[in-house]
Amino acid sequence: MVSSAKLENLNRATKLVKEAAEQKAKVVVLPECFNSPYGTKFFPEYAEKIPGETSQVLSEAAKECGIYLVGGSIPEEDGGKLYNTCMVFGPDGSLLLKHRKIHLFNIDVPGKIRFQESETLSPGSSYSVFDTRCHLLVYPGAFNMTTGPAHWELLQRGRAIDNQVYVATASPARDEKASYVAWGHSTVVSPWGDVLAKAGSEETIVYADIDMQHLTDVRQQIPLHTQKRHDLYKVTAIQEG
Amino acid sequence: MVSSAKLENLNRATKLVKEAAEQKAKVVVLPECFNSPYGTKFFPEYAEKIPGETSQVLSEAAKECGIYLVGGSIPEEDGGKLYNTCMVFGPDGSLLLKHRKIHLFNIDVPGKIRFQESETLSPGSSYSVFDTRCHLLVYPGAFNMTTGPAHWELLQRGRAIDNQVYVATASPARDEKASYVAWGHSTVVSPWGDVLAKAGSEETIVYADIDMQHLTDVRQQIPLHTQKRHDLYKVTAIQEG
Repeated sequence: MVSSAKLENLNRATKLVKEAAEQKAKVVVLPECFNSPYGTKFFPEYAEKIPGETSQVLSEAAKECGIYLVGGSIPEEDGGKLYNTCMVFGPDGSLLLKHRKIHLFNIDVPGKIRFQESETLSPGSSYSVFDTRCHLLVYPGAFNMTTGPAHWELLQRGRAIDNQVYVATASPARDEKASYVAWGHSTVVSPWGDVLAKAGSEETIVYADIDMQHLTDVRQQIPLHTQKRHDLYKVTAIQEG
Repeated sequence: MVSSAKLENLNRATKLVKEAAEQKAKVVVLPECFNSPYGTKFFPEYAEKIPGETSQVLSEAAKECGIYLVGGSIPEEDGGKLYNTCMVFGPDGSLLLKHRKIHLFNIDVPGKIRFQESETLSPGSSYSVFDTRCHLLVYPGAFNMTTGPAHWELLQRGRAIDNQVYVATASPARDEKASYVAWGHSTVVSPWGDVLAKAGSEETIVYADIDMQHLTDVRQQIPLHTQKRHDLYKVTAIQEG
């Protein structure tokens, strides 16, 4: 559960990361916007530089536990602009990558929900990972009470079978009193589209094994990758600089 | 239900098309491989030229009913090669397009199912439609008892929300005695990912209204199309000739 006290959020996240590591987790994923309430009015106040307080705390936790830590996301300030930024740390505490959300979340469903990240955030403009041999897609995300029941699990299962990869998502726990009520339900999905583990709406840790043999099997059973028609279409990433 | 008698299959399809048109259907979709049992050993025997017997029957039905008719698919023979081909007819009976399946279906799940379209079929190599203002994706398809429960509805709902379009699928009815047992469950999905109508496993007609206002609303509520980052990625279709 994300509170309005940043230090409390960092302490709670660190405690849960250590608990997961004690259960032999090798990769731990925190939720989107885990150190700040999720809302455009909060982002300027909670935003930090990187490196900064939160990156320091995450780096130390990763190193102490000897794990890969996907640090959900935090509001980042850089050059007068705000970003929704994910940091990933290695077992030695080093910052492996920093990813700024590329597609900001704007929604306006009359009578249900209106939220426009683009009111205060700027989008990132570079890819952090581009490895076509990807085995696990990780999405820290905060869906809401409108998109959550409709799309949260569906999108994960869709991405899993489209790409024949494991998918792991981490959401903030649901707080009915927050201005933006997160859906919760952090989930891990197999390359066959099965839900392997799924949280409720409360604060918890979700554990799942990533089975590389199962992934290899699924890719052999339905050989999507060898059936791509590179003679007919092409997806190009346009990298900066 | 697809039988081993082609003429019977054509008569049954025509009868159902007329029944749907009497119910004021404007677009009618037949299943994948509706005039032949689905199996690599059957394709050479049932394959036809286009124009041919089946295209003639479908053209007449479209004209008589004054509807758009998406003719599922049939094994097509051309130049010594076989294709899994879909024809679409207009209300005047004219052939609007002919689409040859581009990604053939190969699967091998040990102990469950093995099927390799590529044993006898050749893939098509051109797009039939490439309209980014698409409102309705239509897939005649024949999933099986392994992929059906796992992926049939999931893929449709995923495509619907990824692209914010209506999705309609048409499957052959389930025949437990066939060598390839189709899953059935023809479905229509809304741009929000809701299942609007869904058949059981038996032979039936599925009706649904395609609501253009709802589609416009969904695209305004979550403006995916305006958020595409054309500065970061590009999808290119490589057209023949």
